[in-house]
Amino acid sequence: MSRTTQDWQAADAAHFLHPFTDFDALAKKGSRIIERAENIYLWDSEGHKILDAMSGLWCVNVGYGRQELIDAATAQLKQLPFYNAFFQTATPPAIELAELLSEVTPPQFRHVFFSGSGSEGNDTVVRMVRRYWDVLGQPERKVIISRNNAYHGSTMAGASLGGMSGMHAQGGLPIPDITHIEQPYWYELGRPQGLSRDDFGRLAASWLEKKILEVGPERVAAFIGEPVQGAGGVIIPPATYWPAIQAICDKYGILLVSDEVICGFGRTGRWWGCETMGTRPDLMTFAKGVTSGYIPLGGVMVGERVARVLIEQGGEFNHGYTYSGHPVACAVALANIRLIQRERLVDRVRDDLGPYLAQHFEALKAHPLVGDAETCGLMGAVVLARDKASGTPFASDLEVGMVCRGHCFGNGLIMRAVGDRMIIAPPLVMTRDQIDEMMVLIKRCLDLTWADVKARGWV
Amino acid sequence: MSRTTQDWQAADAAHFLHPFTDFDALAKKGSRIIERAENIYLWDSEGHKILDAMSGLWCVNVGYGRQELIDAATAQLKQLPFYNAFFQTATPPAIELAELLSEVTPPQFRHVFFSGSGSEGNDTVVRMVRRYWDVLGQPERKVIISRNNAYHGSTMAGASLGGMSGMHAQGGLPIPDITHIEQPYWYELGRPQGLSRDDFGRLAASWLEKKILEVGPERVAAFIGEPVQGAGGVIIPPATYWPAIQAICDKYGILLVSDEVICGFGRTGRWWGCETMGTRPDLMTFAKGVTSGYIPLGGVMVGERVARVLIEQGGEFNHGYTYSGHPVACAVALANIRLIQRERLVDRVRDDLGPYLAQHFEALKAHPLVGDAETCGLMGAVVLARDKASGTPFASDLEVGMVCRGHCFGNGLIMRAVGDRMIIAPPLVMTRDQIDEMMVLIKRCLDLTWADVKARGWV
Ligand SMILES: Cc1ncc(COP(=O)(O)O)c(C=O)c1O
Ligand SMILES: Cc1ncc(COP(=O)(O)O)c(C=O)c1O
Repeated sequence: MSRTTQDWQAADAAHFLHPFTDFDALAKKGSRIIERAENIYLWDSEGHKILDAMSGLWCVNVGYGRQELIDAATAQLKQLPFYNAFFQTATPPAIELAELLSEVTPPQFRHVFFSGSGSEGNDTVVRMVRRYWDVLGQPERKVIISRNNAYHGSTMAGASLGGMSGMHAQGGLPIPDITHIEQPYWYELGRPQGLSRDDFGRLAASWLEKKILEVGPERVAAFIGEPVQGAGGVIIPPATYWPAIQAICDKYGILLVSDEVICGFGRTGRWWGCETMGTRPDLMTFAKGVTSGYIPLGGVMVGERVARVLIEQGGEFNHGYTYSGHPVACAVALANIRLIQRERLVDRVRDDLGPYLAQHFEALKAHPLVGDAETCGLMGAVVLARDKASGTPFASDLEVGMVCRGHCFGNGLIMRAVGDRMIIAPPLVMTRDQIDEMMVLIKRCLDLTWADVKARGWV
Repeated sequence: MSRTTQDWQAADAAHFLHPFTDFDALAKKGSRIIERAENIYLWDSEGHKILDAMSGLWCVNVGYGRQELIDAATAQLKQLPFYNAFFQTATPPAIELAELLSEVTPPQFRHVFFSGSGSEGNDTVVRMVRRYWDVLGQPERKVIISRNNAYHGSTMAGASLGGMSGMHAQGGLPIPDITHIEQPYWYELGRPQGLSRDDFGRLAASWLEKKILEVGPERVAAFIGEPVQGAGGVIIPPATYWPAIQAICDKYGILLVSDEVICGFGRTGRWWGCETMGTRPDLMTFAKGVTSGYIPLGGVMVGERVARVLIEQGGEFNHGYTYSGHPVACAVALANIRLIQRERLVDRVRDDLGPYLAQHFEALKAHPLVGDAETCGLMGAVVLARDKASGTPFASDLEVGMVCRGHCFGNGLIMRAVGDRMIIAPPLVMTRDQIDEMMVLIKRCLDLTWADVKARGWV
């Protein structure tokens, strides 16, 4: 790496349009250049070491630099770097991965449809859900119900399924027959009404039934949700929420789709978020953690209810991607899943790291800036509040979350701000000592933010 | 590889839902298992050697087993297997690739938006085109015009842009504000009317103007097309077509989008299909050849007309993919493009291999089964006709193309059937001797098909 940071930044600003970015503002400020990584740490082009508490972007569950994954990629690149699965052909890694996914998913899942990302997986969901009802002779069942502040990707369909108003405002979204209910966000929607978490969970689930009746049950095809909303701010629903959602889906016979792009592969302390939340989905979208992000891959687990109809009565399903079942991506996914199994990472999150992180977050609640703190497995959120007792938020134009994120940047910690929710989802391989280290940094950044907030007279 | 073919096939049928497949029919027949590859050859699990005249799936432009690409992947996996570009960060390979793409694309392109596939690239196109007109204060400009029998991917938006009726029939497609004109397919639409190729090209382009006036010019945002339709059957438009399309886009000020997922990276004998066809697009989608398929990657080249508006007036563009600018994919793309440059593959296609293949295809026209044969660079199509003189096709339910494809399978040649068009797009690294070898196989398969057709009384 012989180029200077300034040189990288100039080339970056001249040619690279970053995702979800104000291009002009970033060009003026200059990107941080991430050059290498090992375990849970990144190094930038100025030599700073950074603790990556976001796993790249909810991806790198097994940490950076894992030789098993590198070796799997190299070997497969030599053997067969690409072949398609369109024309009655298959490659060994795609078949083996399909087998292994059937083993590590709940028993209703025996089939997989591969994509290259979470967004593409959710496009497959839309096409597959509608095809299922078509084949069953109910083509009017087209409507998919999702939630406000959900994130399901950035294709036209993914962004439509998502409930991000900023995305809907750009590009003529949502596409037809996708509709949204309010999210199960207790702190903002339940707590101010004096509802207990459990009561609020049941209330939030009842909004699904209300929407089904409003749309007409005979027109509703599916409900889709993230077990825990990730990009929305690690919104952990009350324990009563998902079982009530499952019951409503069952009552009306509509398909339940669990978007496990973030929650899958151990993040919540079980293999799948639906297992933690107690649902039995018909379809599951996955991506990110399937390869720990080393090589792009995504897909949809297809439950027997849907698979049997498509296989036995569907004829040709006119859908697929060039990279559906990409051999190198599948080989890396195999190595990644076997590593998760061998190192018992899922149990570790459930029995050791998750509870340990939860203790730490519980203690954070005493901080003067913190209105709430919660975790699920190895993901967590801290709510910055103007008045912790009443839960009164800061005015949103103050962007207190961004102030805090700035301190994280400056102090060698990657933490993400979603409004005033500061969130983490660190690699599942971290040690207790590394959790301690991360918590020291988090507290330091909260203290610095608190000092700013006081100095500026915002409290 | 200790598993038998039967064993692979059983696992495949039990778990792997292939793209664009009748799952039940394939399960009964059993997949062919592709185990390894080198240069332009594949080997299946029965040890058969197969000449891959489709480059995987229009991907493997530099051939299989290229050490430079393998080394680039391995090194980057060690250095930094993943990091995102969402939060004001960038990685060296993404920046370098953005720079290099600016060099190898026409001068109006200085910026790139990365995706993970061609489909995602076209979703980005839809969102970006509409955002461009929004920012310019013309939000009613939403309509994108495409063509029947176009292929632009398999997301909801990609399949909507595409003009494949079988895809539109599944899943509630197309999405709103996408409309189609007839394709520039001379053999089927111009020749029967006695039109010269050039006259037909102008006629086919005029359908765009007709559609613009029908929709209302103030509502039309963009026109999108593949320079040569690939999946549609290697439909090579008359030389008059694209210049006339460009003139119409200019006249009405609408954006021109060139989908270069297949035509890019030398396939047509220039770096880009638009250079071969003589257009100056505002946006170009790419994928496949950018990494020769070794690692999934796609994106959109954003011309200055659009880039300046989005950068200077757009604010945050609320769009992107986890794997936008994936460092391993970008590192492999860099190695791939440098290899194409070093081996002068594009010039080789233009000056040597392309003309040589064209000669061979010209000679094929003498075959009794062949109604037409044409090439563009290193892609080509042979039309199987019931009566070559009149161009009368076979009844489509005879599926003569599939009969021919069966012979290809049996004779160690991968060739694709699109209706009765037999198509090829072999790796750009092949030698003249290998073209000779391929042509021997093609002729053998045509002879075998001709024998079948006669034996069955179809001619
Ligand atoms: C829950 C969820 N679904 C889908 C996606 C989209 O995945 P991708 O960015 O790979 O398209 C994401 C990405 O963050 C996600 O968090
Ligand atoms: C012209 C064109 N555009 C887009 C696509 C979609 O690419 P992908 O399958 O990578 O999504 C293809 C795929 O064949 C294509 O040929």
